[in-house]
Amino acid sequence: MKPVTEVEERSDVITLPRIGEDAYRWASDLFPLCRSLTGPGVRETLRYLQELLPAMTVESVPTGTKVFDWTVPKEWSVRSATLTGPDGDIVADFATSNLHVVGYSVPVDRKLTLGQLQAHLHSLPDQPDAIPYVTSYYKERWGFCLPHRQRLALKPGTYHARIDSDLADGALNYGELRIAGECTDEVLLSTYVCHPSLANNELSGPVVTAALARWLAAGRRRYSYRILFIPETIGSIAYLSRHLDEMKRRTIAGYVVTCVGDDRTYSFLPSRNDGTLADRAGRAALAWHGRGHVAYSFLDRGSDERQYCSPGVDLPVASIMRSKYGTYPEYHTSLDDLSVISPEGLQGGFEAIAKALWIIEHNEVWRATMPCEPQLGRRGLYPTLSTKDSYEQVRTMMDVLAYADGTRDLIALSDRIGADIFLTQTIIARLAEYGLLDAVPEGGRA
Amino acid sequence: MKPVTEVEERSDVITLPRIGEDAYRWASDLFPLCRSLTGPGVRETLRYLQELLPAMTVESVPTGTKVFDWTVPKEWSVRSATLTGPDGDIVADFATSNLHVVGYSVPVDRKLTLGQLQAHLHSLPDQPDAIPYVTSYYKERWGFCLPHRQRLALKPGTYHARIDSDLADGALNYGELRIAGECTDEVLLSTYVCHPSLANNELSGPVVTAALARWLAAGRRRYSYRILFIPETIGSIAYLSRHLDEMKRRTIAGYVVTCVGDDRTYSFLPSRNDGTLADRAGRAALAWHGRGHVAYSFLDRGSDERQYCSPGVDLPVASIMRSKYGTYPEYHTSLDDLSVISPEGLQGGFEAIAKALWIIEHNEVWRATMPCEPQLGRRGLYPTLSTKDSYEQVRTMMDVLAYADGTRDLIALSDRIGADIFLTQTIIARLAEYGLLDAVPEGGRA
Amino acid sequence: MKPVTEVEERSDVITLPRIGEDAYRWASDLFPLCRSLTGPGVRETLRYLQELLPAMTVESVPTGTKVFDWTVPKEWSVRSATLTGPDGDIVADFATSNLHVVGYSVPVDRKLTLGQLQAHLHSLPDQPDAIPYVTSYYKERWGFCLPHRQRLALKPGTYHARIDSDLADGALNYGELRIAGECTDEVLLSTYVCHPSLANNELSGPVVTAALARWLAAGRRRYSYRILFIPETIGSIAYLSRHLDEMKRRTIAGYVVTCVGDDRTYSFLPSRNDGTLADRAGRAALAWHGRGHVAYSFLDRGSDERQYCSPGVDLPVASIMRSKYGTYPEYHTSLDDLSVISPEGLQGGFEAIAKALWIIEHNEVWRATMPCEPQLGRRGLYPTLSTKDSYEQVRTMMDVLAYADGTRDLIALSDRIGADIFLTQTIIARLAEYGLLDAVPEGGRA
Repeated sequence: MKPVTEVEERSDVITLPRIGEDAYRWASDLFPLCRSLTGPGVRETLRYLQELLPAMTVESVPTGTKVFDWTVPKEWSVRSATLTGPDGDIVADFATSNLHVVGYSVPVDRKLTLGQLQAHLHSLPDQPDAIPYVTSYYKERWGFCLPHRQRLALKPGTYHARIDSDLADGALNYGELRIAGECTDEVLLSTYVCHPSLANNELSGPVVTAALARWLAAGRRRYSYRILFIPETIGSIAYLSRHLDEMKRRTIAGYVVTCVGDDRTYSFLPSRNDGTLADRAGRAALAWHGRGHVAYSFLDRGSDERQYCSPGVDLPVASIMRSKYGTYPEYHTSLDDLSVISPEGLQGGFEAIAKALWIIEHNEVWRATMPCEPQLGRRGLYPTLSTKDSYEQVRTMMDVLAYADGTRDLIALSDRIGADIFLTQTIIARLAEYGLLDAVPEGGRA
Repeated sequence: MKPVTEVEERSDVITLPRIGEDAYRWASDLFPLCRSLTGPGVRETLRYLQELLPAMTVESVPTGTKVFDWTVPKEWSVRSATLTGPDGDIVADFATSNLHVVGYSVPVDRKLTLGQLQAHLHSLPDQPDAIPYVTSYYKERWGFCLPHRQRLALKPGTYHARIDSDLADGALNYGELRIAGECTDEVLLSTYVCHPSLANNELSGPVVTAALARWLAAGRRRYSYRILFIPETIGSIAYLSRHLDEMKRRTIAGYVVTCVGDDRTYSFLPSRNDGTLADRAGRAALAWHGRGHVAYSFLDRGSDERQYCSPGVDLPVASIMRSKYGTYPEYHTSLDDLSVISPEGLQGGFEAIAKALWIIEHNEVWRATMPCEPQLGRRGLYPTLSTKDSYEQVRTMMDVLAYADGTRDLIALSDRIGADIFLTQTIIARLAEYGLLDAVPEGGRA
Repeated sequence: MKPVTEVEERSDVITLPRIGEDAYRWASDLFPLCRSLTGPGVRETLRYLQELLPAMTVESVPTGTKVFDWTVPKEWSVRSATLTGPDGDIVADFATSNLHVVGYSVPVDRKLTLGQLQAHLHSLPDQPDAIPYVTSYYKERWGFCLPHRQRLALKPGTYHARIDSDLADGALNYGELRIAGECTDEVLLSTYVCHPSLANNELSGPVVTAALARWLAAGRRRYSYRILFIPETIGSIAYLSRHLDEMKRRTIAGYVVTCVGDDRTYSFLPSRNDGTLADRAGRAALAWHGRGHVAYSFLDRGSDERQYCSPGVDLPVASIMRSKYGTYPEYHTSLDDLSVISPEGLQGGFEAIAKALWIIEHNEVWRATMPCEPQLGRRGLYPTLSTKDSYEQVRTMMDVLAYADGTRDLIALSDRIGADIFLTQTIIARLAEYGLLDAVPEGGRA
């Protein structure tokens, strides 16, 4: 029987697949598509993801459907759009970058003076070389976005603004993948497919979520998984309006998967009142992932946790991210391109979330099966020669036994004894095998 | 409909009257009177206050009445008192300062050597130019107080101590004002009228309390108010012995109003176990009053909170002060005169307490009326053009909606989202008007 | 009646006997005996302690008895042991130091080369002049321990290892002393008698425990005491296997008495989940003992609290120590001799634990008997002349009255008001005598 000392040498007990290169390729394929809340770009994106996740279904919610306080908007599609200058030169062309057109722009075909045009232009004085990402979902507008430096150089004269777009009845589409586990308690993963040619925020979320879904589907899982590819805000609201009761009954933890593609840092944003299994597992995963992380407050929220954690919904949903939206310089501009994300960055985002899911899967409450310390020596779990140093070798095993009092789950146990959570689970598994620990039924799900 | 961005510019949503000059004038009028636990000086003070507060009644508790563990003392009055030196020069004269005579001195008319006299003299070596404030309420004594510098210069010889005072059966008097609100739950304000010619401690309390009472009486109030002008300690004990059960049933918060007249700092002293509505509203008022404050412990107590917060009484009573008794150099000496207080100081003391009362009046528990964020845009509450910066503009409104989960009252909500409590209440009121928030019945009173 | 101001001058209200010299003498007498888990050295030690504690009984648990997960081992005795070098010189002799022989060495009489011998030698490269303390209780081995400097100088050649020992059926012995108090709730003191010639760890524990037992037996006690002199680990497991239910029912607090003999520092190691009466009284005792202390976590445990605090046993047991095992340089080597401990060190260890026991004996929950402050003046408890300074003099008394609200025991009261716990108890006793405080029945035992 192997002595425990050998366990201590392998603290990374979970083997995660290498997905970084694949995920980066998927992101590159999807980058040019013109995603928005609705429209053909979303459907193309979902079709691509369906090839990776054949079990995923694509759902439709018709324009005009009431979803809680909201109404599903018209579907937006844009065939082409150009802003032509006085000399006939193309100032901005949708074919070059879909960021040039304000999201949900109504059709226009109009000549204006530069002065009249200015009200329809958007640029960033602080980032003069970036095209900003601007949308106007709920008020009918049109507009062009361009680098501030280019805007300043525009000559007086007559401009021709032409946007060949449709705002018409249609549907809001989203992808949904359900993976059945051993029980109906479930974990939610939610990411969004409404951002056009932007990489970290947001193609990293869909591709890492696809990788997570493939990894989850490949093994046997204790919990079921509900995995959503939705447009942000209106998508989660629409989805919740259809599934809220069931989700409230079943969801033990969830993560919004967003901004998981660059390699600069890790971030954590807890649920509204913190302390849920998603918060605890997420923090434990990042703690032992070993790279440190930036700790945000729910006050810093900005994605679909706004809906999942809203009063009346109250799902246990947190976010594990790399560089969080709103905090990195390229955010919501044309600079957030494929150079911001990397295979390493995507792999790190994948691993951090996968570890949190692993922790949730393994989180149980443990109690020692007998009073007093068991005699580990006769089971080959304890060095038989007591010297000044030998006690340290089995310290972690003894700590697990000492603190497994039926009140602590894996996360609390690892946290209390200050031991790597993956090593702690290995030791727990071995002690349970020897009958020295018992799992408390239904423990560890909250 | 006004966009929310305009709300953010007016964070000071309560308009408080200017009372500083009036209050200073009242203090100047009352300064010369010889107040004590009992006696004519107290009655003259209460008569003056009655002119400001016609609804106030003056109550009497006869000498000898048992009040819990105590007995109401004899009434003390002093007509004149002089200490004459060997050369016939007046060393100390009650007519010059009522601090020259030890409070509750028995009558005396006696010649003594300087040596014999010393046991009856009180002075402060550390503050050689100040007359100390000394009393002997519960043991019959007589004495004179004088500047230490003057005491050191006293020549040997025969001194004539003459105090023409009475200690006779009479009554303990206090003023009581009850302001009826929409419900019988009530707020207590208690100040004391037993200090002779001393300004910050304590004429500031009575005059600021008078101003608060006039302000409270002028508007419609949710809660009822019980406002007391009493002699310290024996007054609150006597009052509690008559009204304890009713006060325990009704009182949701209270403040001892003391030391609210100088302009040097703000101070807060919580109730014994802290955490009551008085503590929470007091701290919130000072936090957003914006001048900072010194945080004391109940261990630093020294006024009638000693009775209100005593075991068996346990009322939720705190103190919002300017420079606290015992902490400023002029305290309990003749230096605590009208130069220590100022219209600005009194105004500040008034405003800090008025804001706490405003917070108590507006403190309710809120919950969002629907799952997910409401669509603010169609109500004119949200900018319709989404840009990199626009989200910040409605952050506070979104935070109010996100955290209004039926567990937080106004104070907790403002504290959690880190937003000015007066702005928070303005936003709450607007959201409630639109039906987006509901108040939880009976919430926010504890 | 004495004014309270005189109380304040004597804050050390418990008088403890001087035991340091006696305890040091007992340790010197016991030092040469070869203690181990079992065997004649343990019995001789218990016989010596029985002379000090005539009421103590010596109990036996036969070899082979099942005690929870363990089996009582064979009894070990060693008559003589020598390691002889190639030239006939004695390398190590049990007669010189019983540390030279690995504890529980099986008999051996064998010639070996130096190379063969090395596997049976133990030394400490970092402490080249110390003989290490090594045992092999649960695997049959033999070995010699010696200073590393001496080991390095060993010449090649044939060595003669001879250990004349027995490992035979017998018994595990321990001493047990029960002192009956006014009630059957009891306090546990547990120390260990299995270490050979080692002074701080561990003869200081047995001799200080003997002194504590004599002090406890000499007076009237509220609680009963269970005092154990046992071999470490197997002794506490064996004892618990016989008495667990009764101990769980009765034990309100307990201390493992270990490492209480040197004069370098004080240390505290709490029970597993902290917060028990043993933890609170132990910390309070050290806080007001006035020498500061090192605060350890239960993660730093290493003695019989491992059993007493194990899940399923869960007794409220902490450790009050001088220099903790494992933290001082002489630990578990021949350097931990009688020069490490001292009469002053033992006296300090005794006093710290005695004070914790005194606090437990006096710990009650108090409540004031009437609303509002009582009038201390007419009881001679309050200065009758109120001056700027006089209030401070009765501050502690007023604080006791203010915070005695029926929720705080002596420990919590002293802690909350920041006053010496021994002075606090003196004041409580006086106020209770005057009927101003009442003890809450059954309060203060948890």
